[in-house]
Amino acid sequence: MQRLDIAAINREAVQAIQKSQPVLTGVGIAGEVVPRMRRNLILHAGPPITWDRMCGPMRGAVMGALVYEGLAKTIPEAEKLAASGEIAFEPWHEHDGVGPMAGVATASMPVWIVEDKAAGRRTFCTLNEGLGKVLRYGAYSDEVLVRLRWMRDVLGPVLREALAGRPEINLKALIAQALQMGDEVHNRNRAATSLLFRELAPAILRTRAKTDDQVKVLEFLHANDHTFLNLSMPAAKIMLQAAEWREGCTLVTTMARNGTDFGIRVAGLKDRWFTAPAGMVKGLLFPGFTDADCNPDIGDSAITETVGLGGFSMAAAPAIVKFVGGTVADAMTYTQTMYEITTAESEAFQIPTLDFRGSPLGIDLLKVCETGILPQINTGIAHREAGVGQVGAGLIKPPAKCFEDALAAYVDAYCPE
Amino acid sequence: MQRLDIAAINREAVQAIQKSQPVLTGVGIAGEVVPRMRRNLILHAGPPITWDRMCGPMRGAVMGALVYEGLAKTIPEAEKLAASGEIAFEPWHEHDGVGPMAGVATASMPVWIVEDKAAGRRTFCTLNEGLGKVLRYGAYSDEVLVRLRWMRDVLGPVLREALAGRPEINLKALIAQALQMGDEVHNRNRAATSLLFRELAPAILRTRAKTDDQVKVLEFLHANDHTFLNLSMPAAKIMLQAAEWREGCTLVTTMARNGTDFGIRVAGLKDRWFTAPAGMVKGLLFPGFTDADCNPDIGDSAITETVGLGGFSMAAAPAIVKFVGGTVADAMTYTQTMYEITTAESEAFQIPTLDFRGSPLGIDLLKVCETGILPQINTGIAHREAGVGQVGAGLIKPPAKCFEDALAAYVDAYCPE
Repeated sequence: MQRLDIAAINREAVQAIQKSQPVLTGVGIAGEVVPRMRRNLILHAGPPITWDRMCGPMRGAVMGALVYEGLAKTIPEAEKLAASGEIAFEPWHEHDGVGPMAGVATASMPVWIVEDKAAGRRTFCTLNEGLGKVLRYGAYSDEVLVRLRWMRDVLGPVLREALAGRPEINLKALIAQALQMGDEVHNRNRAATSLLFRELAPAILRTRAKTDDQVKVLEFLHANDHTFLNLSMPAAKIMLQAAEWREGCTLVTTMARNGTDFGIRVAGLKDRWFTAPAGMVKGLLFPGFTDADCNPDIGDSAITETVGLGGFSMAAAPAIVKFVGGTVADAMTYTQTMYEITTAESEAFQIPTLDFRGSPLGIDLLKVCETGILPQINTGIAHREAGVGQVGAGLIKPPAKCFEDALAAYVDAYCPE
Repeated sequence: MQRLDIAAINREAVQAIQKSQPVLTGVGIAGEVVPRMRRNLILHAGPPITWDRMCGPMRGAVMGALVYEGLAKTIPEAEKLAASGEIAFEPWHEHDGVGPMAGVATASMPVWIVEDKAAGRRTFCTLNEGLGKVLRYGAYSDEVLVRLRWMRDVLGPVLREALAGRPEINLKALIAQALQMGDEVHNRNRAATSLLFRELAPAILRTRAKTDDQVKVLEFLHANDHTFLNLSMPAAKIMLQAAEWREGCTLVTTMARNGTDFGIRVAGLKDRWFTAPAGMVKGLLFPGFTDADCNPDIGDSAITETVGLGGFSMAAAPAIVKFVGGTVADAMTYTQTMYEITTAESEAFQIPTLDFRGSPLGIDLLKVCETGILPQINTGIAHREAGVGQVGAGLIKPPAKCFEDALAAYVDAYCPE
């Protein structure tokens, strides 16, 4: 076996990420555009998981989705169906997509389509439902299902027609701008959502939809500063896909949680997941909730950190500490520290308060294991029971075991005895 | 004469500024809403000035405005009319308003109406024309006049109807948010414009205007990140009006330039202007221009600095150094230094990178004179000739003489021999 030049391999992988150009091209129906999507398949966040091991909010989202999809009539019926073995559960990450929090998606849901045309890749993500009682946090009340149907019947079609009638939207440029405007595009997306809104509004006006529906669509987008999260995530995913499946490469290409397990994948180790129990998020809880209400870490949104945004770019978003906790100095430190476990700096994403230094890019499994520094993630916190919703937001690091196991597997695979 | 408690007087004045609540309530026609507006009156930026002393860009804007208003048929005819004595020239600041750069306004122009309802005050400002060849930078070509007519015939009426059909927009809250998003709302207004756009878009859809005109209005607002400047300025003006005309008060309530003179006013000295020759702005010029092309400092936009925004809040807007020059560290220093000449910190406007410290508020004439520290202003740069337009942006301080003369006048007025 030839000696691997890991540094050169990683350099090439990072270059591929740097060259990736995610653009928003449209909205489609999951069943029509997501690879291998089918009616009895539920996609979810994080590494693979079976019904019996799923946490409360993911079960809640699954039950809500089965009723929404018409596969069950009631929540108890949905629970029975979910446990029956007739429903398949697979990670979004194995279907070229990502899902925030529970990340549950079914065939009839509208999804954003993000493309990297030069690379011939597409990624997908559902549309963000807004705040309060929402499926992604495991809520499944009528209010949640009524909103999901409106998203399927009005929001999706209007956005689809709007995007079809205008040039694609350059998400990389938009994220770069948002970083100059106090977003890190994981838990702070106000600027990115605003810039997206400016791009979409004239095109929405030009659709054939009734004025009333157009107004409702604009008001829905306007009411939710997290609208853009469901675009920063597939944009991050498509950039990281450029590094995936590279012989010998030690870059981390996925960090994702299903609310039970935290899982990572490494470029040179292909489709293998390295998992460990998901941790508890430390942060700020909404009034009336305590630590006992919190579900362990959940969601695919850590894909933003994996590409150097989110917790890695908190120095660009000092105002976020009011939401996730800590001080502005902490936010600066998180970003500074992440340079120690990454191999490059983004050419596109710059941190103004660090004199426009590129954001830390390319998490190197070897550097994580050598330094003992774990990736910094900021994230929302779901209630541990199905049906409740978000209870706060905070900070967390992945379990060290994911990286230790991945390193052992890498040694097995690549280092001759 | 009783001894003045200047500190107490200033404290009360600052409190009045803190309490001011600027809201955007509508769009009107200058001739109908601006006090003492009339057909042969031209409002302009800065302290009072006569035609013969006006700089190139202000002359250009006046000539363009006379043709736009139908008072002259051609630019040469307008030039003759302007010099004839038949046209009156008065500062916007003496008509409860403000104008960016040349700040030229005539009776038929649409204006934003900003109110402080509790105080019973209204202020006004024209709508921003966008970038490139525009009247406020002294350009007067057909392109400029066609756009002004479209603003009068389409943009103004659509915005007027949109605002009439929705609740007023809280400008103070919007500016506070924009400071968390990298704006200082003088030369960086991208976030504030985006947030305004989100508020206006649904209401614009609900107007009776043709879809085509609605789309054009949205695209016009979207194309110009400075849209909000023409709202941050009257919002700053109305807040400062809360401190004006206060016996013994040493707070600076106006800093404004007409391109020839820089003028300030001080609360306790009522309507007196203290002027000195306007300086040259140091900054970044657009390609193809040199220092010899630059007009001296011009415009009422320094009202933003007067209320602690703009150059005073540059620490909130590190990305602005790419536009006005300098480093991020400089931006931090500008804000830090301004605390030395102000008497308070804003309760509404916070600087994230300074751990959410309130922006420096209430420029004290006495502190400026004691410390020798002059207010820090950032600003656009106009070409010195009529008809050209913007050539760059940069940083400037007012002439010390304005403050020295004001102090002498204050001593004359208030200090018994």
